[in-house]
Amino acid sequence: MVNRESSQPPRTDAKARLCAAARELMTERESMEFSLADIAARSGLNSALVKYHFGSKDGLLRAIVEEDAAQALGELGKLVARDIPASAKMRAHIAGIINTYFRHPYLNRLLHQLLNERGADDAAEVTRIFVEPVARYQKMILDDGVAKGEFKPVDAAMFHFALGGACDQLFHARSSLRAVFGLDRIDDDMRKRYVAHVTELVMGGVERR
Amino acid sequence: MVNRESSQPPRTDAKARLCAAARELMTERESMEFSLADIAARSGLNSALVKYHFGSKDGLLRAIVEEDAAQALGELGKLVARDIPASAKMRAHIAGIINTYFRHPYLNRLLHQLLNERGADDAAEVTRIFVEPVARYQKMILDDGVAKGEFKPVDAAMFHFALGGACDQLFHARSSLRAVFGLDRIDDDMRKRYVAHVTELVMGGVERR
Repeated sequence: MVNRESSQPPRTDAKARLCAAARELMTERESMEFSLADIAARSGLNSALVKYHFGSKDGLLRAIVEEDAAQALGELGKLVARDIPASAKMRAHIAGIINTYFRHPYLNRLLHQLLNERGADDAAEVTRIFVEPVARYQKMILDDGVAKGEFKPVDAAMFHFALGGACDQLFHARSSLRAVFGLDRIDDDMRKRYVAHVTELVMGGVERR
Repeated sequence: MVNRESSQPPRTDAKARLCAAARELMTERESMEFSLADIAARSGLNSALVKYHFGSKDGLLRAIVEEDAAQALGELGKLVARDIPASAKMRAHIAGIINTYFRHPYLNRLLHQLLNERGADDAAEVTRIFVEPVARYQKMILDDGVAKGEFKPVDAAMFHFALGGACDQLFHARSSLRAVFGLDRIDDDMRKRYVAHVTELVMGGVERR
């Protein structure tokens, strides 16, 4: 057998290339406004492949969220299972959320869109594959910290919202970043400052004094 | 002189009634999707008055944000000027943000739309009339707390984002509220729980131990 050159790439490769093209476009444009023609031009693939693999642009967006969620949840699951103090898990979790938004600049906007700006079906699906599992893992870390005497008892449901909002806001409220602080983009220094700040704030709130 | 009945209400009254109708519709529908005809039906006024007083539906929305911002900033300004401990100011400020979103259920969505989903002009305007003044007042409270020995030195810019996100998320992420916690609406008990939780979290993070 010899490897044959083919103009039609293998199925999995095409799917990955389409997702990669969409991620690039959303990151560059800081918006979700791209067409199937844009995807075709960027990926070098026929735009009909989007319909073939994902059904629609919305299907492509959902697939991207699923893939990113699976990766983030895989890391979070391993963290929760580690035999380390609960406070170390919480610190790593906080950095993990902020770093995920930093590494995937489109993800924050995409999650907000699917959860809050579209229909109930999209919101329920993203909640099922991402929000609910994250909330469960967070509760496990909090319970672990209380059991080990590290944390005060904390309302896990309320904590889920407060922490999510705190981590998310730097990325979601980019327009204020520019106007209030004269900063044009979130660079690595700002990422580190934000991780340190949110960690200090939240750990001060949950750890026993 | 006798009071004359008139089918044309005075100018200020018409403006207030149009704003009130828009607030009601946005609250009931949990969305900003309403037409000038809806406003006319709700207010009992001619839809042409929206164009006359506000230029457009967007102008009406900006006027609502301006009015709500002026009220919130008036309260915050008085709070900052009070001769009380900085920690009492911060606690009242946190409750104030959450209570404002609770009392004006449309406001969170409206701010997100104007800041993040529209053009740069809307974002700059809302930042100028609302976000910047709030950030300045927050810095005054933080500086006051450091000067009085109550607070640790805190990065005021980062704090602005973390606190804003924490207060905002319960309202912005309503879809998760339903799906994760089986709660259909934010009632007064939940408002109190959230105020208590965010206050505990944030004060633990800023107060000297």
